[in-house]
Amino acid sequence: MAATAGVGAAAAFGLPAAPTRAAAPAAGKQAPGFYRYKVGDIEVTVVTDGARVFPLPDDMVSNVKKEEVNKALEAAYMPKDQMTIVFNPVVINTGSKLVLIDTGNGPDAFKQSNGAVGAVPTNLAAAGIDPKQIDMVIISHFHGDHVNGLLTADGQPAYPNAEVTVPAAEWKFWMDDGEMSRAPKGRMEGLFKNNRRVFDPIKSKVTQYEWKKEVAPGVTAIESVGHTPGHTSYVISSGGKSVFVQSDVTNHPALFVRHPDWHLTFDQDAKKAEETRRKVYDMVSAEKMPVHGFHYPFPSVGHVEKDGSGYRYVPANWSPVL
Amino acid sequence: MAATAGVGAAAAFGLPAAPTRAAAPAAGKQAPGFYRYKVGDIEVTVVTDGARVFPLPDDMVSNVKKEEVNKALEAAYMPKDQMTIVFNPVVINTGSKLVLIDTGNGPDAFKQSNGAVGAVPTNLAAAGIDPKQIDMVIISHFHGDHVNGLLTADGQPAYPNAEVTVPAAEWKFWMDDGEMSRAPKGRMEGLFKNNRRVFDPIKSKVTQYEWKKEVAPGVTAIESVGHTPGHTSYVISSGGKSVFVQSDVTNHPALFVRHPDWHLTFDQDAKKAEETRRKVYDMVSAEKMPVHGFHYPFPSVGHVEKDGSGYRYVPANWSPVL
Repeated sequence: MAATAGVGAAAAFGLPAAPTRAAAPAAGKQAPGFYRYKVGDIEVTVVTDGARVFPLPDDMVSNVKKEEVNKALEAAYMPKDQMTIVFNPVVINTGSKLVLIDTGNGPDAFKQSNGAVGAVPTNLAAAGIDPKQIDMVIISHFHGDHVNGLLTADGQPAYPNAEVTVPAAEWKFWMDDGEMSRAPKGRMEGLFKNNRRVFDPIKSKVTQYEWKKEVAPGVTAIESVGHTPGHTSYVISSGGKSVFVQSDVTNHPALFVRHPDWHLTFDQDAKKAEETRRKVYDMVSAEKMPVHGFHYPFPSVGHVEKDGSGYRYVPANWSPVL
Repeated sequence: MAATAGVGAAAAFGLPAAPTRAAAPAAGKQAPGFYRYKVGDIEVTVVTDGARVFPLPDDMVSNVKKEEVNKALEAAYMPKDQMTIVFNPVVINTGSKLVLIDTGNGPDAFKQSNGAVGAVPTNLAAAGIDPKQIDMVIISHFHGDHVNGLLTADGQPAYPNAEVTVPAAEWKFWMDDGEMSRAPKGRMEGLFKNNRRVFDPIKSKVTQYEWKKEVAPGVTAIESVGHTPGHTSYVISSGGKSVFVQSDVTNHPALFVRHPDWHLTFDQDAKKAEETRRKVYDMVSAEKMPVHGFHYPFPSVGHVEKDGSGYRYVPANWSPVL
């Protein structure tokens, strides 16, 4: 109404009617969520599954007061009383295999979140990758944000030509009926049920892998338990270069890289997770090895360095060319 | 050859011939170089012009030994003896105007660099922005990486429907024949000539702006001289949110945010540039105002905080949605 009145006034005074809108409307849309880098001859494509934004739960960090968590969020220029968790799988072209590590939150979450998460298929398409081309899916651990993307909305294999390979220790724990019967009601029982839902339809495609072995050419599985009993990280190596794909050794670096002694509510064995965290970060900081974190801000690759009693995450410089 | 031999051996032994290449060839191409964020109601699109990679010049930092510069590069996990400079203009949709701040290295540099720089037109297209839609081009200062994109390869206005607005102090200096006659041969004389080459064909479109004034709705020009005599930064403000578009207050943050006392060889008045740098960073760090840096790693937006005798750049978290 104000704009219309303005145009009228301009006309009444014989002034030119200035345009009140840019010729181009606001785009209202983010750039596609993929990013590429090389590790020697291996081509890595980080593909985001999106982000969940939610009120900060009281127990996000189980051994620290919410007030302390808020301080850490504000120190990282993030809003207080709010948590943003991002999910960033990687595709690795080893030259002989096209490998996806972890699959995102899947089609149900995509629907429920109005596309905020479950965006791996969208961003794979933006990156020019056809799910049919994926030769292997490597799963780091059996939480929903890593396994739920294995199935399409109608319960079919999302990567129809892929072998799905999982940590032997993770399979043993989550597929054990005894463990399931002893699981606390609620989240833990839900995870057991979800893993049966996801893996039952694709059982014939599933293989198990052991730690310290090459899972795919140039991709070695590394034990990094605590977050789950079979939680696995990877070293990708080629041509004398390496990157440490940490999976969920930590969630958001502003909280848990900065404060390795903080216990994420989702860490199943929090003490063990902390031990793993320190071991991994002492190693990568000493060796100056780049780290990819599934829950690090996209494109989720950088360095971790020691800083006081904790560590600091230094994101890699975005390169406009590959 | 080795792969062929392998297939032959597999056949000879009656083994299945394993594929020796991924079904999908390596993409070999980076994601498009644009990124969006909101400042209140204003939509900002960072559009990269690309990166120059070159051997570290002895005098990159005029008042510090090359050895010290190499230490800073290595501390930032960048290769020593090599410099990478990136160029990241922004497009601002204010709701009433579509505004481009600075234009990149232009078509000649695009050709000479095989597309490594001069990529603004490519990335504008990727972002869905037609150069004809740009209502205004704001120039921060008269260096080639900021003004050369004003013309197309055949010397026509690259933004045919745009007013081109420039700092009055910058125009005064570079268009002054006396200043030009006193300029040292080489780089400085070249800059004077280049500015005449660029601005002559579009003179009728050029307006001049003053500091402390709104140049476009929500975009206020801020004096930040030293790098050049009329060097300008901007505060973009809307709905109680602001971002400080610093232009070239510093070049790469790993060198000059970290070490504000280091003098970039391209800073025309190095002492004044240092003074401006400290003033700007003291302000933005105290106010926790986000900063966009033309030469910061893409997407070039984050916070600057005090750290010892210098500052530290903390990149913003990439958001998968707008």
